[in-house]
Amino acid sequence: MAPRTAEIIAVGSELLGSTRTDTNSLYLAERLSALGIDLRIKSVVGDEREDLATMFRHAFGRSDLVILTGGLGPTDDDLTRDVVSDALGLPMTPDETIVTKIRGRFERRGMTMPEVNRRQAQVPRGAVVLDNPNGTAPGLFIDHDGKIVILLPGPPRELQPMFELLCAGPLQDRASDERAYRTSIFITGRGESHVEQAVQPIYSRWRDANPPISTTILAAMGQIELHLVLRDRDEARGRASLERARNELLAAIGDDVYSTDGRTMEQVVGDLLASRRYTFAAAESCTGGLLTSRLTDVPGSSSYVRAGIVAYAYEDKTALLGVPKAMIESDGAVSESVAVAMAEGIRERTGADVTVGITGVAGPGGGTDKKPVGTVVIAVIVPEKPVYVRTYSFIGGRAMVKFQATQAAMDRIRRMLT
Amino acid sequence: MAPRTAEIIAVGSELLGSTRTDTNSLYLAERLSALGIDLRIKSVVGDEREDLATMFRHAFGRSDLVILTGGLGPTDDDLTRDVVSDALGLPMTPDETIVTKIRGRFERRGMTMPEVNRRQAQVPRGAVVLDNPNGTAPGLFIDHDGKIVILLPGPPRELQPMFELLCAGPLQDRASDERAYRTSIFITGRGESHVEQAVQPIYSRWRDANPPISTTILAAMGQIELHLVLRDRDEARGRASLERARNELLAAIGDDVYSTDGRTMEQVVGDLLASRRYTFAAAESCTGGLLTSRLTDVPGSSSYVRAGIVAYAYEDKTALLGVPKAMIESDGAVSESVAVAMAEGIRERTGADVTVGITGVAGPGGGTDKKPVGTVVIAVIVPEKPVYVRTYSFIGGRAMVKFQATQAAMDRIRRMLT
Repeated sequence: MAPRTAEIIAVGSELLGSTRTDTNSLYLAERLSALGIDLRIKSVVGDEREDLATMFRHAFGRSDLVILTGGLGPTDDDLTRDVVSDALGLPMTPDETIVTKIRGRFERRGMTMPEVNRRQAQVPRGAVVLDNPNGTAPGLFIDHDGKIVILLPGPPRELQPMFELLCAGPLQDRASDERAYRTSIFITGRGESHVEQAVQPIYSRWRDANPPISTTILAAMGQIELHLVLRDRDEARGRASLERARNELLAAIGDDVYSTDGRTMEQVVGDLLASRRYTFAAAESCTGGLLTSRLTDVPGSSSYVRAGIVAYAYEDKTALLGVPKAMIESDGAVSESVAVAMAEGIRERTGADVTVGITGVAGPGGGTDKKPVGTVVIAVIVPEKPVYVRTYSFIGGRAMVKFQATQAAMDRIRRMLT
Repeated sequence: MAPRTAEIIAVGSELLGSTRTDTNSLYLAERLSALGIDLRIKSVVGDEREDLATMFRHAFGRSDLVILTGGLGPTDDDLTRDVVSDALGLPMTPDETIVTKIRGRFERRGMTMPEVNRRQAQVPRGAVVLDNPNGTAPGLFIDHDGKIVILLPGPPRELQPMFELLCAGPLQDRASDERAYRTSIFITGRGESHVEQAVQPIYSRWRDANPPISTTILAAMGQIELHLVLRDRDEARGRASLERARNELLAAIGDDVYSTDGRTMEQVVGDLLASRRYTFAAAESCTGGLLTSRLTDVPGSSSYVRAGIVAYAYEDKTALLGVPKAMIESDGAVSESVAVAMAEGIRERTGADVTVGITGVAGPGGGTDKKPVGTVVIAVIVPEKPVYVRTYSFIGGRAMVKFQATQAAMDRIRRMLT
């Protein structure tokens, strides 16, 4: 049967703590979406047999595909295989070819396979074993009662190639001919309620269209995202509707849209720099190098990112960037004149075409009545345009202020280069 | 009744996409743990009435406390209030004081309250309304059949103060006198299997102790975490057992442990720099400013972080850091001599006490047979010690290589200053 709906259950008490997120589910969500399978629910369950059994039974009852990640290790804590075989009434038998493979992995590292690892060779009746080239735990693909259950190991570098090579194909073969089409619009520079006001009349009309388009508005740090989804059997018709809806939304929002193809702000700015053959350099204070780091997260960014100088201390703003000491004393380190002098200083020192100066109060300390925490001054220089400088007030903690400042700086470059 | 077990249900189709993580559950996991309440399951459910109703009924059936986040907005998609009141059989009535508050919020911004917002004033019978100073959606606290259900809005800046001010107290009052005590050990510089080998005999003994201590080993990017948890009614006894177990583990792992109190690597290094009154500056190439940015994520870091120079291009390594052009040509930009010259160059230019030079191949392009992707050279200079330099080979994609390089650089500073 073609799986239309899916659930993901991540197994492991450690994933319930405050220090870890379940990154596998993000990857799987994207892959399922590409396969036209709706993800309905995702959950994280600790290493408790009863909880996992209940969650799995309910998931199997209501969805066509259940993917369980983690809990396939050799120890008593690793319950996933047992729970699934119990719930589906599939007895398990050991598979000696798996034992041989696991033993080989240990031997190649000069070690002896501990006996506990034999647990990993238990296979429920009828399950297809999914080879794991990057770890000891094999995965399992179970086609049962017209539904599919997939068990994958927890480490992303094991899970991802296994899903790609061994699961995506069989799921694709079974997939329905109705596909989900998605598009997104990323916006920065205006608040959520203003975006909502502008777009609500448009998306409510498309929601009632045939086929309907559902829209989600997402306010993330420093940006608003509109996600549009449509399901259709006819690809040409589906894509055309989606594009019309997207174009209406774009017309309503205008140049606050920075991306319509899922590219991040750093990719958008990087592509603009690359297409104009401009080089880039930043002079950062309160953002501490985050702007340069974000821009260099993009593969290939070494072709346009020249350099960055983080001048946290006053004397380094003078020594490294040539900001006049008298200017810092008279105007303050967080001032429009200093931000411009930083952008000019890095331009002189690197010869980069596009430069930025950022100075501000990231907090939690250092705020004053006139320049409270969140005050950030951004100067941007691009060829053949007047120097841009503006004082922003950002809300939130230190990390949020840093991020929003880098977002605003990149958005300004984008607007000046577009 | 004292809630011992909890579940978190995050509501919203957007949280099922590949671009967003449910950060609220990380915050709530930490707060519940501090209150001695076990988090058993957390889930994300889309805006589908039936799915949410099923998940809520099961969660309410098996756990003492259910926290639902999101889905409290004014639109038809916002189902949480309706589903909970239906499932518990509590009829809803409008609360005019809420309407007045919401209307006030709109009026202060010169706007008229849309009629749809009246939905947010619906209150199930017996529920305590939780005031939301940062948004329109009030929360709800429901004490029903000896269990507790809490509804909170999705945006973290609304949810967190509401939980802190309005939920933590009442939960604390109801909490059992048996508390969970936790400690963690953060390790870097050795692989997961080596850590496991060293600590397994110790933690398996404590697992069988009375009261037992459970240990979770977590391999995150560039670090291994051991999390120890013990539950006891007697705080002194509980803490003493936990400390003995922790000390045994510390003895077995030695100086690969960088933190035993939850501090991040950047905090640990920052505290070492501050306590020695040393200043810091970095010369970065492949990490693109991430090292300086991570160190400046720590509040108060401006007292020791002097400056950073990101020299991506060859000519900037020479112009900004004084790396001899001939050295780059003869040894290559990714070489131990260049890394040392970068660390020396930034030290000369800033006068900082502790300096780092990082150069490498972050990928995906740029690798060669001799210097494949993941090759990173790190040089560290601290007062009164010989210059340190080493060539590392990191695995993973661009972001992972960048992160691991900054982690290794900070760990080296830690070891050299300890």
